Amino acid sequence: MTRYQHLAGLLAERIQTGLYLEGEKLPSVRSLSQQHGVSISTVQQAYQVLENQQLITPQPRSGYFVAHRKAPPPVPAMSRPVQRPVEVTQWDEVLTLLEARSDKEMVLFGGGAPDITQATLKPLWREMSRLAQHQVLDALNYDTLNGRRELREQIARLMLDGGIALTADEIVIASGCHPAMSLAILAVCQPGDIIAVESPSYYGTMQLLRGLDIKAIEIPTDSETGISLEALELALEQWPIKGVLLVPTCNNPLGFIMSETRKKAVLALAQRHDIVIFEDDIYGELAAEYPRPSTIKSYDIDGRVLLCSSFTKTVAPGLRVGWIAPGRYLDRVIHKKYAAIGTNVPSTQLAVAAFIRDGHYHRHVRRMRQIYQNRLETYTCWVRQYFPCDICVTRPQGGYLLWVELPETVDMVCVSRTLGRLKIQIAPGSLFSASGKYRNCLRLNCALPPNDENREVIKQLGEAIESALEA
Amino acid sequence: MTRYQHLAGLLAERIQTGLYLEGEKLPSVRSLSQQHGVSISTVQQAYQVLENQQLITPQPRSGYFVAHRKAPPPVPAMSRPVQRPVEVTQWDEVLTLLEARSDKEMVLFGGGAPDITQATLKPLWREMSRLAQHQVLDALNYDTLNGRRELREQIARLMLDGGIALTADEIVIASGCHPAMSLAILAVCQPGDIIAVESPSYYGTMQLLRGLDIKAIEIPTDSETGISLEALELALEQWPIKGVLLVPTCNNPLGFIMSETRKKAVLALAQRHDIVIFEDDIYGELAAEYPRPSTIKSYDIDGRVLLCSSFTKTVAPGLRVGWIAPGRYLDRVIHKKYAAIGTNVPSTQLAVAAFIRDGHYHRHVRRMRQIYQNRLETYTCWVRQYFPCDICVTRPQGGYLLWVELPETVDMVCVSRTLGRLKIQIAPGSLFSASGKYRNCLRLNCALPPNDENREVIKQLGEAIESALEA
Repeated sequence: MTRYQHLAGLLAERIQTGLYLEGEKLPSVRSLSQQHGVSISTVQQAYQVLENQQLITPQPRSGYFVAHRKAPPPVPAMSRPVQRPVEVTQWDEVLTLLEARSDKEMVLFGGGAPDITQATLKPLWREMSRLAQHQVLDALNYDTLNGRRELREQIARLMLDGGIALTADEIVIASGCHPAMSLAILAVCQPGDIIAVESPSYYGTMQLLRGLDIKAIEIPTDSETGISLEALELALEQWPIKGVLLVPTCNNPLGFIMSETRKKAVLALAQRHDIVIFEDDIYGELAAEYPRPSTIKSYDIDGRVLLCSSFTKTVAPGLRVGWIAPGRYLDRVIHKKYAAIGTNVPSTQLAVAAFIRDGHYHRHVRRMRQIYQNRLETYTCWVRQYFPCDICVTRPQGGYLLWVELPETVDMVCVSRTLGRLKIQIAPGSLFSASGKYRNCLRLNCALPPNDENREVIKQLGEAIESALEA
Repeated sequence: MTRYQHLAGLLAERIQTGLYLEGEKLPSVRSLSQQHGVSISTVQQAYQVLENQQLITPQPRSGYFVAHRKAPPPVPAMSRPVQRPVEVTQWDEVLTLLEARSDKEMVLFGGGAPDITQATLKPLWREMSRLAQHQVLDALNYDTLNGRRELREQIARLMLDGGIALTADEIVIASGCHPAMSLAILAVCQPGDIIAVESPSYYGTMQLLRGLDIKAIEIPTDSETGISLEALELALEQWPIKGVLLVPTCNNPLGFIMSETRKKAVLALAQRHDIVIFEDDIYGELAAEYPRPSTIKSYDIDGRVLLCSSFTKTVAPGLRVGWIAPGRYLDRVIHKKYAAIGTNVPSTQLAVAAFIRDGHYHRHVRRMRQIYQNRLETYTCWVRQYFPCDICVTRPQGGYLLWVELPETVDMVCVSRTLGRLKIQIAPGSLFSASGKYRNCLRLNCALPPNDENREVIKQLGEAIESALEA
């Protein structure tokens, strides 16, 4: 953590614990600088962070004051999706969202890309450069089917942090979490099968189910505690469900982390009904709490949890390095991988293996966790400031995604068309439902730097929503 | 072409046209050196090439003589596979073959890896290094779903050589020819459908069919002219076949190039029966003839040919850069790609796009074409020398794969186990059949450098086959 971040954290804590009261004048920049032995500009930067988070307000020629606090917006209530298996639709809407990526002018608040501009990524670039300069032949040759062993060994080490003790041989590399999940489902399911999912659920996963001809049954999900175990149990009693697909740690899009108790309970349910769990842990390492929360896979005793993850969110999407720990489905996953995809790019695997091995990965993730937490707070403040009053906003416990629920009358699918013309891309909530629910919701990517341009974008977004409300 | 290759070619031509007669003494090294204005060592290298190809024999203290020519071994006859749709088997055997890749001591004559050690690849390494050193963010960010535009534009240019006029928008990048073919089949077929294939057919494609639950009907195929159109027509009349999968240019494993007439005839057949053609062109640019033969796709007027290819054989496997030109199935291919795989690694796409753009690709492929032709000739000579007499050997018209048919009594599945212990990997013919036919055949990868070690390996291979014959 940098000095100003440290100082900002300290001051925020004092405000939150009531040491500085609402409306009270804060110490001057000069006095804080002397008191903490830091430069004037460090204090100014710290105050800027707090101002962004709307904890303090500047008054010209008087200094900074503790802001009057609005009550935080409520979190969204438990979702209420249709309670039967449905075919996933919404492909055209997802395609529109994806196509915005090729428009260089578009501000991409609708995607899930992480920030790849931090200096802690430099050792990764260096390693990529080294592989090319030394013409390391392994980088241009065929990979083995399971993926590079040196990488699988490093992943096995990382997985210990999530409570999972596995060998490199029990891990299969895939070109991301998405293809890993695709292999997991191919290994377990047949076309026509039913999988239970959280609702809302990430649109990529939804389209994956559609592509594989799998029906989805959407289960009510709470934005703070996760999937409703009662509703899941009811569904399991009623339908021939093959597995449940969960993002239990730093959920996409809701940001919750299921408690250990609930993770164990969902596994017990899976055991009782003899189904599998597809566990998507892609944001798991970006949990605000440290050490990171345990995975469902860590409690798995009979190989029924297929854990999928990748370095897409923690390091960089362009690596296309993900993995699957498929438990008892290892052989089937390997066959499906050979049949459908073949081997992966070795150079990015080699680079990221060295990045972890030399300790750079942990340093980088530690930094990104902090950055994303700050950004989530800042964007939450901006949403409160610029959006209409009667909204619900999630309080993500990790990752960098924010989910906003607007009044029922707002149709974000329409609003997103208007925004597209303003070169602003957001993800309308309907993409996160098999049947197009949540049209009054949106997901925001808070990995984008909270600078003036992006503050302006959030303001424009708020205005577009206000117009939609009035229309 | 280097000087010694040029000289070797010249001398080979004189021998083949009868200018130098069998048993005749060839000019001394010194006189050739003076005559052609090249160094002594250049002449020695040229003679070494001719000796490897068994065109000449050295006699100690007398010089080189034109070798006495054995009649070349016959080519394999038209194959006779089972004439009904079958489920593909042989996965365990393929897995054994693949697992040999991770054994560093194994000599990999069974795989399909190209030679990636030539100096003409240096500009590719340089570009990879440049991308990393300049921290080009596009290299670590999400790719667009279709793949990098700059690469698709270069591929569109290359495809003109195969007679295909397409825009970049009609091309979709995939992580190799294999996943491209997987997407092609997913876009057209349902589980349980039937696809007609050449017999023998590449084992990777066979397992792809199995992985997608597609049945294969194997069509008799001639090692010089390709798939039997008569047999294909009969099959089309008899079975509800969805498409035919062909490797018409530099076939894997047989090495033939279908004539233009036959390519047009198979397309006409596809039109008449309203089926699609899956055209695998992965070795197409390595045809011995130049300019390269046209693709079936180049005659396609109604978008029923899905052409798949990659830079795996022409540049390097580790790039994992392939593509598909899916004709009328473009939208379906894009959806299937998103659902099953997602986006690809951008860094290798950017590197290969620059490699083509700057003219290095053409230079490299020109060189590799020549090298592989020489190596095919050399390995063919060694096979004639060290294998039993009554064999059939293909005469590949491009690529670098050789197919050898041994007497019926030899079981190459057994022999390959013996060879495995000697750290020699070969591909037994049975992998190239849905139902395990061709156990008396093998495929050899002649991209391996024809040095003394590899000559010794071919000798050991011949000995193992001889023992199997005697047993």
